[in-house]
This record gives sequence, C-alpha cells and structure tokens, in this order.
Amino acid sequence: MKSWTVNATQEVSYDVRQTDRVLDPGNRDLARAAALHPGARRLVVVDRQVWQLYGPDVRAYFRHQRVDARYVALPTDEPNKTVESVYAVVDAADAAGLNRRSDPIIAIGGGVLTDVVGLAASLYRRGIPFIRVPTTLIGLVDAAVGVKTAINHHSHKNRLGTYFPAATTLLDQSFLRTLPTRHVANGLAEIVKIALVRDRVLFDLLADRAADVVELVKHGGVGGEIIERAVGGMLAELAPNLWEQELRRLVDFGHTFSPGFELNADHPLLHGEAVAVDMVLCCLIAQGRGLLSEDEVRRVVRLLRLIGLPVTTSGVTPDQLVRCLEDATRHRDGHQHLPLPQGLGHGVFVEDVTPEEIHRAHRSWVALDRLREVA
Amino acid sequence: MKSWTVNATQEVSYDVRQTDRVLDPGNRDLARAAALHPGARRLVVVDRQVWQLYGPDVRAYFRHQRVDARYVALPTDEPNKTVESVYAVVDAADAAGLNRRSDPIIAIGGGVLTDVVGLAASLYRRGIPFIRVPTTLIGLVDAAVGVKTAINHHSHKNRLGTYFPAATTLLDQSFLRTLPTRHVANGLAEIVKIALVRDRVLFDLLADRAADVVELVKHGGVGGEIIERAVGGMLAELAPNLWEQELRRLVDFGHTFSPGFELNADHPLLHGEAVAVDMVLCCLIAQGRGLLSEDEVRRVVRLLRLIGLPVTTSGVTPDQLVRCLEDATRHRDGHQHLPLPQGLGHGVFVEDVTPEEIHRAHRSWVALDRLREVA
Repeated sequence: MKSWTVNATQEVSYDVRQTDRVLDPGNRDLARAAALHPGARRLVVVDRQVWQLYGPDVRAYFRHQRVDARYVALPTDEPNKTVESVYAVVDAADAAGLNRRSDPIIAIGGGVLTDVVGLAASLYRRGIPFIRVPTTLIGLVDAAVGVKTAINHHSHKNRLGTYFPAATTLLDQSFLRTLPTRHVANGLAEIVKIALVRDRVLFDLLADRAADVVELVKHGGVGGEIIERAVGGMLAELAPNLWEQELRRLVDFGHTFSPGFELNADHPLLHGEAVAVDMVLCCLIAQGRGLLSEDEVRRVVRLLRLIGLPVTTSGVTPDQLVRCLEDATRHRDGHQHLPLPQGLGHGVFVEDVTPEEIHRAHRSWVALDRLREVA
Repeated sequence: MKSWTVNATQEVSYDVRQTDRVLDPGNRDLARAAALHPGARRLVVVDRQVWQLYGPDVRAYFRHQRVDARYVALPTDEPNKTVESVYAVVDAADAAGLNRRSDPIIAIGGGVLTDVVGLAASLYRRGIPFIRVPTTLIGLVDAAVGVKTAINHHSHKNRLGTYFPAATTLLDQSFLRTLPTRHVANGLAEIVKIALVRDRVLFDLLADRAADVVELVKHGGVGGEIIERAVGGMLAELAPNLWEQELRRLVDFGHTFSPGFELNADHPLLHGEAVAVDMVLCCLIAQGRGLLSEDEVRRVVRLLRLIGLPVTTSGVTPDQLVRCLEDATRHRDGHQHLPLPQGLGHGVFVEDVTPEEIHRAHRSWVALDRLREVA
C-alpha cells in the first residue's frame, strides 16, 4: 500500500493604502492598483447607495482612463448578503469575459459589498484578483482591511466564506462626508472594540471627544488619527493570523453574541450596533469577574451612547445568549476563547463562562436604562 | 497618507494513502484519518449510488467505532453539481453542530461528490476539515488527489470553486468491483491523459492490455500498477503548483474543449468521456503540427476505443470549438497554453492555434469513423 504526502507553501501579500478623493480623475491610485489602461476590460461592482451618490464620478474616472468598464450596482443590506448577490457578480464577470489573472474586479462600497464581491472573486475560476474601495467607516477600519469574505446562510451571519485578500485596498476617508450618521456610529463600534482590547491611547482619544467623534471622523484631523490607529491596530491583530489558525482572536471581542442580535428578525441591528450591544454585555461579564471596575464599564457605556450606539437590545432572553455562546464555541472548535477587556485597552481570554454568569450579566444589562441616569 | 503591506505564508500538507477494504470494521485507516472515537460527532456525506450499494457497510463501520454519525446521501450527477448540493451539506453540518477544527466531514463517493463536499467544507465557517474516500476510478486517480473543489454554474463546468485539500484521502481500489464499466472507462480517460503527456511506460502498459484493461483495474494486479503510476504522475504534476500560479499545466491536456462537450445538453458525456473526445481532437491538432505521426494518433484512437471511450461527439461545430478555446484562453489569463502530446508520453504547450487549424482538425475528427476500419 503506497502513500504520498503533499507539502506546499502559499505566499500571500496585499496592500492597504490611504488615499484622498480616489475618484478624482487626477488621482492615479486606483488606476495603478487595478492596472487600468486604454481598452482594458474591467468589472466595477458598486453598492447601490454609493452608485446613487457617486455613479457619475465612478463613470467619469474609468472613462478618463479609457477603460472598457462594465458596472453592476448591488443592493447590499444584510438580507442581500446571499449567494444570489455572489451570482450577480459571477454572471457579470462571465458576460464581461474577464481574464483570470489580469482583469481584476473592482469593488466600491461598504462591508457587505466588499465581502460579497470578495467571495465571488475567490470562487470565480477558483480566484481572480480584486481591488477594494470601502466607502463606509466599518469598511475602512474593519471589513476591508482583512482577508475574510462571506455571505450569510439562513439566520447564520457570515456562515459561508473564504480567506481571500484583495490585492489592494484603497482607504479614502472623504467618502465619509456623505455617510449617514447611523453608519458612522456603526463603524465607530469596531474602533471602540480595537481600543478596548489593545489601545488605551485610542480609547482616551475617543472618550475625550465622544460628543463630536462622529463629526470628527467625517472631516479628518483627529478623526484621521483615530482611523489610522484603528486600521493599524486591526492589521497588527490580523496579519500574524490571516487564516485564523489561532482561534483566540482579540478582534472577536464584541463578536460572540452579536451574530444573534444582528440577524434578529424582530429588531435587526447594523453589524457595529450589534457589536456595541455585545461589548456592553461582555463588559458586564468582565465586571462580574473583576476584570473591569464599575466605573470603567460606565465609561464604555457612556462613550457608546454619546456615539449614538445602542447598548442593549430588546427581546433577547438569557437562554438565547447561552445558545449564541454555544455556537461561538463550536466556531472556536469547542473552546469559548471569549475575549474580554481587562481594564481599558487590554484584552484577555476566558474559557469558563457559566450560564449563571450570563443570566447575571443579562440582569445588569436590561437594567442599563437606570445606569443612564447615573452616567 | 499611510500604507500597510501584509505578507503571510500558508503551509499546506495533506496525505493520499492507498488502503484495502476501507469499510471493513477491522481497517483502522478511516478511523485514524477522521480521528474517530466513541461519542464523536461526524457528518458522513455519501454518493446516493454508493449509499445503495454500501450503506449498510458505512453504517456498520461507524457503529463499530461508536461514533455519533449523521448521514447525508446526495445525488451526484453533473446536473446536481450545484450550490443546492453544497447547501445540503452545509445544512447538515449546522444540524450536526460540528466543531470548526476537530469534527471533519467525511466524503464517500465519486468526483462530483468529493468536489461538492470539498467546496462545502472550504466555505463552511471559512473551512472545516474533510476526509475523502473516492469510490470511482476518476475519483481515485484525478478528482480526489488534488486540492480543487467546484460546482458548475449555468453551462460552465466547474466555474466556481476553491483550492482546499482534504486532510487525508484514502484510495481503495476494491470499490471498483461494483463500478459500472462505463464509469471505469471514464476514469481510464484520465489515466490515458497522464500517460500521453508524461509517462510512456504507462501508455505502453495500457496499450498492451487495452482489450481487458477495464477488467484489470477492477481486480488489482497490473490494474493496481496502472492506478499507482497514474496517481503518482498526477501528484507529481499537481504538487509544485497547487494553487495554479503556473497556468501552463500538462494535466489540462484533454480539458480545453471538453467542458463544452460535457455540459452539451443534446448529448451529455461523462467527464472522462469528454476528455477522451478532447484528447483525440488535440492529437489531430498535434498531428497537423508534426508533433504526432499519423500512426501515433491511430494508436491513441485505438486505445480509447478498446477501453470503450468515445473519440468523437455529434453536433459540435468548428465554431463551438473555437469558442471553447477562447474560454479556456480566458481561464489561462489570455494565453492558449494548449497542452499537446509530442510523441507518446511527453507534452508541450502551444500558444498559436488558429481557427483554421481547428477547422482542419474538426474535418479529420468527424471522419474518424473511416479511420475505424483501418484500426
């Protein structure tokens, strides 16, 4: 009986680059990243909202480069994060007759759009290159800096996906000027997350300017510094663990119970909103274990509220929370690996949270409206 | 403007191992590969045909190991190589509550089944391990030894997929005893392919026993030697190029025009049958270029016919062939990279096949019924 062992190594490299006014015809960053040249065939997939606001600029940019561009505008709310959206991209790639390695797909939009296009690009002919231009804050600091692509399946958030980097991701903060306040707050939740588990300086930056941080990130200055620290921190966590061989991930803070809130049919939340609610619950669990003081929890809740994020959500029972933790535990291969803050700006993992602790945290959590008066 | 570059390396390792009577409760190979232990949860996905023949053996094996096994039997002809089949596996994985790293899915079946389960395993939570037990000859020598997973999309064969190795693949020739003759011939096409582009000894082994090679591979002996050479040759071609960074692939011989034949609605062929037809066409193109002699082409045609494989297919126009080459060229990033045999047992790539050459080869091809009398 013969046997063979195959050993191989895959090298992966990708760039994340800040730019300003990426759609200005004089800005060559996208042209370079996507190897645009006269007559080149390119498929450009754009978030439908972004298309309404920036469609003429997108068209003008590719026309200026004399590219043979085809455009697809996709609706990209969570209920459309499905295989049908992936197929819309695949069908357009077929219709455009893209070459397998030299005709990258260009994705312009929020996190849902870049996740869906990323999955389509990774599956089409088992992988064709793509370029990402996030247009939301959550895209800039979270969805579009790592290598994870995904769609939802039934009520399971991001249940199906791949690890597939965009060759280049261009971060252009100027898109945030047209981003609705609720979506700015949504992205700030991921920034607060990074701050809480690894960057005390970032937490203080946020807390000091909590009342106007939404406006700040829309208009540069300290806002730019906040975004840069968040991206740098995010990449520092992701880069050594791109394929998640290590399932203890600090960036999973706020992502244990949140999938249950986010796809909650009665009271759906945006991703960052669900993360904010999860972070508060986890901070209460951390407080129960002596990892955070009552005052520190209060500072977190205050910051999230001033940003305009929810800190609780209605209609979630303690038993549902227990089931969320069970599914997260399967996702972490049978271990809770629950990231919790220990003080503000440092994270630890715990493995033995009990249903009783969750019930107790749930009681404090639903009582947070009383805490509001104190804050 | 800040920029970040992420560099990372993924190490991949997998085993392909011969075994005998893998479902015999005394055979520990599958138990070891899938880390079976009393009470372990395992999802076992089985080709529907295989389930009819071997269902009781499969059940008995896992019962003997006292595993908490769930079974899914999937129809796995080409029209079922779809996302719906992937979802059937995903839903079963959800229902079984599999852990992400320690509860591998076990796939038992032909190439379509192992491709579909491989894709499901690679997408589910962005990758959970799986174990392959091919039950057809084409699975043994081709589909189940590499890392490519796939589904069809519209009329495009394997248009969507991933590179995702099974942790272990167990090759058990004893399944071939119950394999219908047409399917044995189907697998032999891939063996002839490997022989033609890289293994003259294998070609002679096949040609010398052409009349009874179907029976031989079903019952070991020289058949076992043939299979072992084919697997070894296949892995030698695949291993240095797992992610197809190099698009000049000798194993693509017979896979340029065949996707068009295989999903031909009027006259569908099995994968290996389509490959056989493509190889004959390519041999005629090679003959036109002086790479093969008329006698060598005749030997190839004779071998394929004695195996019971088709060498032509009806209703394919030269223009359709030209379009097949165009799509293959897009798949090879704008290059034909057309593998052709140069003599028997050695392959080369050509880049400049013209529509006229294809028309000429097509004329010889449809005239092959006359060649039959000569053979």
